[in-house]
Amino acid sequence: MGYTGTTMTPKDEKILKAFKKTGARVATTARVHLRNKQDLALYYTPGVGVASLHLSKHPKDARDLSVKKNSVAVISDGSAVLGLGNIGPYGALPVMEGKALIFKELAGIDAWPIVLDTQDPDEIVKTIMAIAPAWGGINLEDIAAPQCFEIEQKLIKALSIPVMHDDQHGTAIVVLAGLINASKVVKKKLTSLKIVISGAGAAGSGTTELLLSAGITDIILTDRTGTLYVGRKEGMTKHKKELARRTNPRNVKGDLASAMRGADVFIGLSGKGLLHSAEIKSMAPRSIVFALANPNPEIMPDEAKKAGAVVIATGRSDFPNQINNALVFPGVFRGALDNRVEAITTTMQLKAAKALASLVTKPHATHIVPETLDKRVVPAIAKSIR
Amino acid sequence: MGYTGTTMTPKDEKILKAFKKTGARVATTARVHLRNKQDLALYYTPGVGVASLHLSKHPKDARDLSVKKNSVAVISDGSAVLGLGNIGPYGALPVMEGKALIFKELAGIDAWPIVLDTQDPDEIVKTIMAIAPAWGGINLEDIAAPQCFEIEQKLIKALSIPVMHDDQHGTAIVVLAGLINASKVVKKKLTSLKIVISGAGAAGSGTTELLLSAGITDIILTDRTGTLYVGRKEGMTKHKKELARRTNPRNVKGDLASAMRGADVFIGLSGKGLLHSAEIKSMAPRSIVFALANPNPEIMPDEAKKAGAVVIATGRSDFPNQINNALVFPGVFRGALDNRVEAITTTMQLKAAKALASLVTKPHATHIVPETLDKRVVPAIAKSIR
Repeated sequence: MGYTGTTMTPKDEKILKAFKKTGARVATTARVHLRNKQDLALYYTPGVGVASLHLSKHPKDARDLSVKKNSVAVISDGSAVLGLGNIGPYGALPVMEGKALIFKELAGIDAWPIVLDTQDPDEIVKTIMAIAPAWGGINLEDIAAPQCFEIEQKLIKALSIPVMHDDQHGTAIVVLAGLINASKVVKKKLTSLKIVISGAGAAGSGTTELLLSAGITDIILTDRTGTLYVGRKEGMTKHKKELARRTNPRNVKGDLASAMRGADVFIGLSGKGLLHSAEIKSMAPRSIVFALANPNPEIMPDEAKKAGAVVIATGRSDFPNQINNALVFPGVFRGALDNRVEAITTTMQLKAAKALASLVTKPHATHIVPETLDKRVVPAIAKSIR
Repeated sequence: MGYTGTTMTPKDEKILKAFKKTGARVATTARVHLRNKQDLALYYTPGVGVASLHLSKHPKDARDLSVKKNSVAVISDGSAVLGLGNIGPYGALPVMEGKALIFKELAGIDAWPIVLDTQDPDEIVKTIMAIAPAWGGINLEDIAAPQCFEIEQKLIKALSIPVMHDDQHGTAIVVLAGLINASKVVKKKLTSLKIVISGAGAAGSGTTELLLSAGITDIILTDRTGTLYVGRKEGMTKHKKELARRTNPRNVKGDLASAMRGADVFIGLSGKGLLHSAEIKSMAPRSIVFALANPNPEIMPDEAKKAGAVVIATGRSDFPNQINNALVFPGVFRGALDNRVEAITTTMQLKAAKALASLVTKPHATHIVPETLDKRVVPAIAKSIR
C-alpha cells in the first residue's frame, strides 16, 4: 500500500492511471431535455419563475420540486482522511467523490463532493449552514476529533435536514451489526460482552455511544496514553473526560494490554499493528477481534486467528467479514430522504444495526455482515430510518 | 404571467404541475460502475487513498482526476431573482437548477445549484471561498447590486478558478453580440452609436463596462432617478458615481425621455413598461430597441415597431431576436474549463461577443443573434475563452 509511504509502487501507478483515465467518477445528468423553445420556456425562463415564486412562499415544497428531493452533500475539511491524517481538501476530494459514487450506485442518491478550504470549526459550521438550503442531507466525513463532535452537534441543532458524521455513526452502526452476529457465533450475550475499543477519535467515540445505547455496559476505551478512566490527567480533552465518566466501570488503568486481559471483544479504530498475539491470548475464551484500521489493520487476520480469536473482521475487501461504512451510509440517507427525516436519532441507528445484522440469517465465524454490494442492504437500512 | 402577481393562473398551475412531476431537473450519474469487490477496491478504499495522497501533494492535478475537471457551482443568495426581486434562497433554487440543466444540455458541464442562506457580502465571499476547492468554476447568479460587484471582485482576486457573475457579464456579452449585428442592419458604425441603458444594476453596469471596452463612448445610464451624471446627488452609490465618471460624455441631465432624444440605441435592463412610443419617436432615425426586462419588457415589440424602431429584441422566446444569457454562459464556462482559464478577462468577453455575432452571417431586422439551442453557439464562444 504505497500511499502510506512516500514513493509509488507499480500498483499505485496503475491505480492513479485508472483515476486519470476516468477523470471525475461522478457527473450530472439532465432529467428533462431541452429540445426546443417550448422546453426552454417551461423549464427555464419564463416557466421557472412560477416555481421560484412558489418556493419563495412555500420553501418546504423544495423537497418536491427541486434537487433538495434527493441530494446529499458529502463534505470534508480534509483534517482526518482515511489513515492518511490531515492532508487537506484536495487530499479529501477523491474519498468524497468515491462516496458520491457509492451513494449513486447503491442508493440512487444525488450526492456531490464538497471539500472545504478551512479547518476552523466555527467557519465550517457557518459555511455548511450557508449552503444548506438546496440539499436534502449532509454527510460529514473525515473531520478530525474533537472538532467533529462540536461541528456535527451545532449543525444538527441548526438545520432541519439530516446531518450525519459518517466516521462516528456509520462506523457505529456497522460495528454494532457485526457485534450482534459475532456474539451469536461465540454464544455470548451481547449486553454482557466485555469490550475494548482502541481509538478514542470520531469512530471510537461514535461506536462507544451506540454500544452504550444498545445496553452494553463494560466498555474500555484506549488511546495513545492508555485506558480512559475518571481521574486520568494526561491527554484528556473535555470529550474524553465525558467518555471516561460513562465507560470503564471496573476502572481499569494502564495500557492496551491491561485492558485486554479477560476481554471478550477487541474493536480497533486506531492504527496499523497496535495489537499483538500476546494480548489476544490474554482475552477471554472465544474472543472477537475487529481490526478495522484502514487499509492496515491493528493485527493481520491470520495472526489474530493463530492467537486464538474466533471471529475476526477487518475493514478490507480482501478478507472475510468486511466491516465498512459503505454498508451503512447509502441506506441511512436513502431512508432519511424517502421518509423526510429531519434528524437521524440513536433509535434509528440501533434499528439500522439490527436490520443490517438480520440480513445474515445464519451467522458464522467468517460471515457476520452482508457484502457491501448485496442489494438487500440499502432497503433494509432505509426502512429503519423513519 | 401569474408569477409577477399573487394568484396563480391555470397556465401557472400547469407549469408547477410539470415541475412537481419532474422533481429535480438535474441528477448525478456514475461515470464508473461498482459491480464487484475489485471495483470497490479500486474506486473506493483502498484505491482511493492513492489518489488522495497524490492530490494532497499535487492539488493542481485535481483538474485531471476529480470532479474539478468539469464542474461549475451555480450560486445565488436569492437577492435579485429574475424580475421577482429579493425572494431568498428557495425562490432562487429553480432558476439555479434551470441553469444547471442548461449547462449540461448545451455544454456537457456538470453544474450544481447552490443557494445561500445569507445575503451578507462578506459571508457570501467567505462561504464561496470555503467551498471552492472541488469546483472548476463559479457562476454567480441573481445577486443584487451593488453587493454583486464587491462579491465578484473579491472572489476573482482570491480564487484561481473562473468566477463570473452572469447577470453582469453574460448579459454584457449577449447584448454586445446583438448590437454588433443590429448596427450592421441599420448601417451605423458600432463605436459611434449613441446608447441609452435603462437600469444601473448588475446587468446595466456590466453591459456598460463591456460596451466601453468595445470602444463605444456615448453611453447614458439611467435609473429610477434619471440619468447618471457627474455631480448628481440623489441616489448615488459609490459604484454609480464611478459609472457616471466614465459615461454620459454630453452630460445629459433629466429623465429617461431626456436621454432618449436623438439616441440610436435603447437597451432596457430595468422593468416592465418603462419605455413609451413617444420616446422611441424622439430617437435618431433607424433606431434599435432592446427591451430585455424579463418576462415583461420595457415596451412590447409591436408597440416599439409602430413607433418606428427598426431592430427590436427582447429576452423572451416568443418574439424574434431573443437576447438571453443562455446564449453565453454555457460556452464561456465550456471554454474556461477546457482551456484551464483562471479568470475570464474583458478581452475574452469581447472575443466571445464577436464570435457569437459572427454566427449570423446575414443579419437582418428579425435575426441578429443565433437561436439559444443552435449547436454552433457553445463551441464558437468556448474558442474565445482561452
